[in-house]
Amino acid sequence: MVKAYVDIDTLKYLLYDVHGLESILSYERFQEHDLESLNLFLDSVKEFSDRELFPYIKVMDENPAHYKDGTVMVHKQVDTYMKKAGEMGLIAALFDFEVGGLQIPFMVHTASAYIQEAANNQLPGYGGLTQGSAELIVHFANEILNKTYVPKMLSGEWGGTMCLTEPQAGSSLSDITTKAAPTDQDYHMISGQKIFISGGDSQYAENIVHLVLARIEGAPSGTKGISLFIVPKNRPNEEGSLTKNDVTTVADFQKMGQKGYCTTHLGFGDGNDCRGWLVGEPHQGLKYMFLMMNGARIGVGRGAAAIAMAAYMASLEYANERPQGRKLTNTGKKNPDEDQCLIIEHPDVRRMLLLQKVITEGSLSLVLLASKYHDLVQSMVDESEKGKYRLLLEMLTPIVKTYPSEAGAVAVNNGVQVLGGYGFCSDFILQQYYRDIRVFALYEGTTGIQSLDLLGRKVPMSNGKGLELLLAEIMQAITAASADDELPSYAAKLRSKLKLTQKVLGFLMPFAKKGDYERYLADANLFMEFMSHIVLGWLWLDMATKAKASLDKGDKTYSKEFYKSKIHAMKFYFKYELTKTTALAETMMDEEVLTVKTDDDVFC
Amino acid sequence: MVKAYVDIDTLKYLLYDVHGLESILSYERFQEHDLESLNLFLDSVKEFSDRELFPYIKVMDENPAHYKDGTVMVHKQVDTYMKKAGEMGLIAALFDFEVGGLQIPFMVHTASAYIQEAANNQLPGYGGLTQGSAELIVHFANEILNKTYVPKMLSGEWGGTMCLTEPQAGSSLSDITTKAAPTDQDYHMISGQKIFISGGDSQYAENIVHLVLARIEGAPSGTKGISLFIVPKNRPNEEGSLTKNDVTTVADFQKMGQKGYCTTHLGFGDGNDCRGWLVGEPHQGLKYMFLMMNGARIGVGRGAAAIAMAAYMASLEYANERPQGRKLTNTGKKNPDEDQCLIIEHPDVRRMLLLQKVITEGSLSLVLLASKYHDLVQSMVDESEKGKYRLLLEMLTPIVKTYPSEAGAVAVNNGVQVLGGYGFCSDFILQQYYRDIRVFALYEGTTGIQSLDLLGRKVPMSNGKGLELLLAEIMQAITAASADDELPSYAAKLRSKLKLTQKVLGFLMPFAKKGDYERYLADANLFMEFMSHIVLGWLWLDMATKAKASLDKGDKTYSKEFYKSKIHAMKFYFKYELTKTTALAETMMDEEVLTVKTDDDVFC
Repeated sequence: MVKAYVDIDTLKYLLYDVHGLESILSYERFQEHDLESLNLFLDSVKEFSDRELFPYIKVMDENPAHYKDGTVMVHKQVDTYMKKAGEMGLIAALFDFEVGGLQIPFMVHTASAYIQEAANNQLPGYGGLTQGSAELIVHFANEILNKTYVPKMLSGEWGGTMCLTEPQAGSSLSDITTKAAPTDQDYHMISGQKIFISGGDSQYAENIVHLVLARIEGAPSGTKGISLFIVPKNRPNEEGSLTKNDVTTVADFQKMGQKGYCTTHLGFGDGNDCRGWLVGEPHQGLKYMFLMMNGARIGVGRGAAAIAMAAYMASLEYANERPQGRKLTNTGKKNPDEDQCLIIEHPDVRRMLLLQKVITEGSLSLVLLASKYHDLVQSMVDESEKGKYRLLLEMLTPIVKTYPSEAGAVAVNNGVQVLGGYGFCSDFILQQYYRDIRVFALYEGTTGIQSLDLLGRKVPMSNGKGLELLLAEIMQAITAASADDELPSYAAKLRSKLKLTQKVLGFLMPFAKKGDYERYLADANLFMEFMSHIVLGWLWLDMATKAKASLDKGDKTYSKEFYKSKIHAMKFYFKYELTKTTALAETMMDEEVLTVKTDDDVFC
Repeated sequence: MVKAYVDIDTLKYLLYDVHGLESILSYERFQEHDLESLNLFLDSVKEFSDRELFPYIKVMDENPAHYKDGTVMVHKQVDTYMKKAGEMGLIAALFDFEVGGLQIPFMVHTASAYIQEAANNQLPGYGGLTQGSAELIVHFANEILNKTYVPKMLSGEWGGTMCLTEPQAGSSLSDITTKAAPTDQDYHMISGQKIFISGGDSQYAENIVHLVLARIEGAPSGTKGISLFIVPKNRPNEEGSLTKNDVTTVADFQKMGQKGYCTTHLGFGDGNDCRGWLVGEPHQGLKYMFLMMNGARIGVGRGAAAIAMAAYMASLEYANERPQGRKLTNTGKKNPDEDQCLIIEHPDVRRMLLLQKVITEGSLSLVLLASKYHDLVQSMVDESEKGKYRLLLEMLTPIVKTYPSEAGAVAVNNGVQVLGGYGFCSDFILQQYYRDIRVFALYEGTTGIQSLDLLGRKVPMSNGKGLELLLAEIMQAITAASADDELPSYAAKLRSKLKLTQKVLGFLMPFAKKGDYERYLADANLFMEFMSHIVLGWLWLDMATKAKASLDKGDKTYSKEFYKSKIHAMKFYFKYELTKTTALAETMMDEEVLTVKTDDDVFC
């Protein structure tokens, strides 16, 4: 029914024109690529997504992955996807040529994954986790482990997972209790339980390679005593055959969304025969995981942004086809003898669609920018420049993970509303996106955790240097917009928001300085929302400035209407979204402390 | 698993103490009742809900109502509920003694339905629609029709529905095309299609009485030509037997929530044998419907408020039992060797729970207040006083319908987040409430429609008299709070928001005056949110003032902690929610017009 799931023009505009992919290609790592070859790559991803991903989004929801007789049964397209994505090099795309990768920029990987996830937010997860766990092996494990596991993973024959969460620990990784007992061989004996393992099992996978956080006997308590192990479902023998490795699929989690993307409960070593191979050094597991975490968190934001995009496309299509009601006349009445108008002509429907547009395209711009920083950190040689982008990336990561997840859910919610009663009905896809996107604010560190990271770690890091760099980047965009003939008032508005940021931090910082961290961080969630709006305001101002420049110089890459629509969207963001910072600042600077626990029971 | 679904103390506190049910009982209609008997009635409803409603909420979601061979198959508890609710007098509770009703105040009916809907938001719908359609018959149909239909409906033997929506018309009722052809008998021949009919069919109902909006041949176009008909699924013959009346269940709508509450597509007269009996006068159908609409819209707000309550209870219970993480020390670090704390000790979890509390209890206060106005309008003799409360009720109705639906969904969303990953899992009830509540912003006029009603009709009605009366009520609460020793600063804050309201309307009104209604109403949705916060701020200030008075005079009806928690919640509302009006006003008074259609395509 729905025809489109992604606005490819806007994706390419952001990738090439706004965020300047070309500037990345000059780095040595990407010398084999040029814009044309990468553009062809993205077109092939789109064509692949049209064919192998989008047609399966609804059917996978209607036929959830489920536990049966010790295995998780997934849709057969999972098998097809893994093999074809492997063949096309999509799982290996980021990796070095020497391990069979395509060595593409992270920005292009982001665009590729975004197209796939907009088409189907469940299938690419299986490939994404396989890629992520292979990355951990490539970066930190020895050569034997690399040779044993990586080729089969990148080809899509074997799956991969990340096993962090345990029932008693949840987000609190310091409470992990999965055990690793040393042996006189090259492996440890693993025992423990892991929950919420995405892609943790499948009747099709010949093998699944679990990257497991565990505690070596005698290790220190807390996060400092955690090590990382490769624990395959089946252990490869020297001659290449496989032996069961005592990894049990205990159960799966049925969920309200992403039903085709299985979530499992795994048991390790119930029969005392589960072997795990240490990755890198002991007690460094969490450090390794977190070195990959920026990429993983960009990936979560990207997935949410992609769902918001698909929902926007679907509701826009509906609004452009559905006649209902009439436009108001200047008497305030409607004439029932007139033909009905399309609902896209009603201001409130336009408001909802524009809100979807600014959140969706803004989120995409955000994940592409973070991806660019990621590329710069990976590719730059100059240590000081590299350090700058590392701090910018650190600063932006919690926002990239959170804004598309939270605001994306708001966008999809508005998409449901555009369809009226049909939005709630299973025949229409909006209700699925509404359910699917809800998990993104929980994945890879909840919004609460990300907010503590932003205000508690990232703002103070390197004596505030990351924040300073971010504000300087924003000032550059303000300066550029100020030089335009139409945009100075928007530039001035954003400048006033930078001042407001300083004011808010000036109010909050003293609490941290005097050791009252609970008070300092109590409204971290609001600070996240506040900073997100400022960052999005910046990205929209930047996009509008560039669109205006293209209009002024008669650039024909895109139509005039296209450029004008980006400026219009910026204005919408400034009027309807950026204004929210006023109220958020008012709340954050309120003296009253209402959420820190006291002896009173405030919930009766 | 979850033990509680409703906070009965708060419900009774709001009903008896804050909104003074007793003051209503002095009216003639309620002379047979006293507080004690009504309290016993509510206790019996709670006991009934514990037994017959709450145990079925999850199983009805897991086994959706569905279409099979021309009938909709619903859960068997629907049959049990209808019969037992009929026996207990719950369907008839609002009706006169003479038709077998209990003649209870609407406020008590609201409390009763609220308890039931918090326990199970799907079963009571079948009874609620039966009651609503019986009300239409009692108020507007002739005696024969009354005798034929009403007793069987109030006993729960026959169901009832409201058939408004048609595929091509949606919210635009003026486009209804269902036809009624006169005959030389006492009935018309009905033909047409109706969609989104809640409770439209069931394998258990001996009969279902549809109240159908249709157009008599030759009637004027638009809303003025619509009449109301009784169209039973089976028509009763004189001797009491039933004959099929050519009402076909064409299909049902599968939905993402409220899966146990069927939504049907009905065909009337496909075999040219569908008879409908005119209710009241021709062409008055929409007027009759809308005379019942205030009650129906209070009912929608109440249902959403009840789901938000059930979700709050469930997430509060989880937060009180789940250990995870540790409290921050004053070095900003955590000590992993300490025991984990309960998640309710984390400020961000407390913030989410307090947000749920203020939305949930505030919504309940709102529906009870509107119910009180409804009682006053029904019971008062003095025409001028009656007129005052009629205007207040008209003013409040779109807000009562909308705030609990929209903010309630936000509350449930926070409830999901409190549970972390488990919130997304089907084993926990939060994800169901998240899906169930989503439809309330669509039912009985979407949020967009309600917002147009508020700003387009209610604010200007009687030359602004309704708004004036509302603001005067709010001022009374401000004056009362100003006299307290702790509350004047909150009173002052709300007073400043009344000034802001005048300012916003001062900005908007000129657009209406000069005939630019599209511009005037373009941000009606934001005005709805703005006014809702002011109304909720008022209700919280009022509750806090009364709680403070109880504390001051040592009232022992509830514990000190209970009263203090209400004052704390008011402070939370003022700090975290009421502040949003600042930004909303800023947006509404922005000169830029971005959502009214122009020739530019802003969606490319």
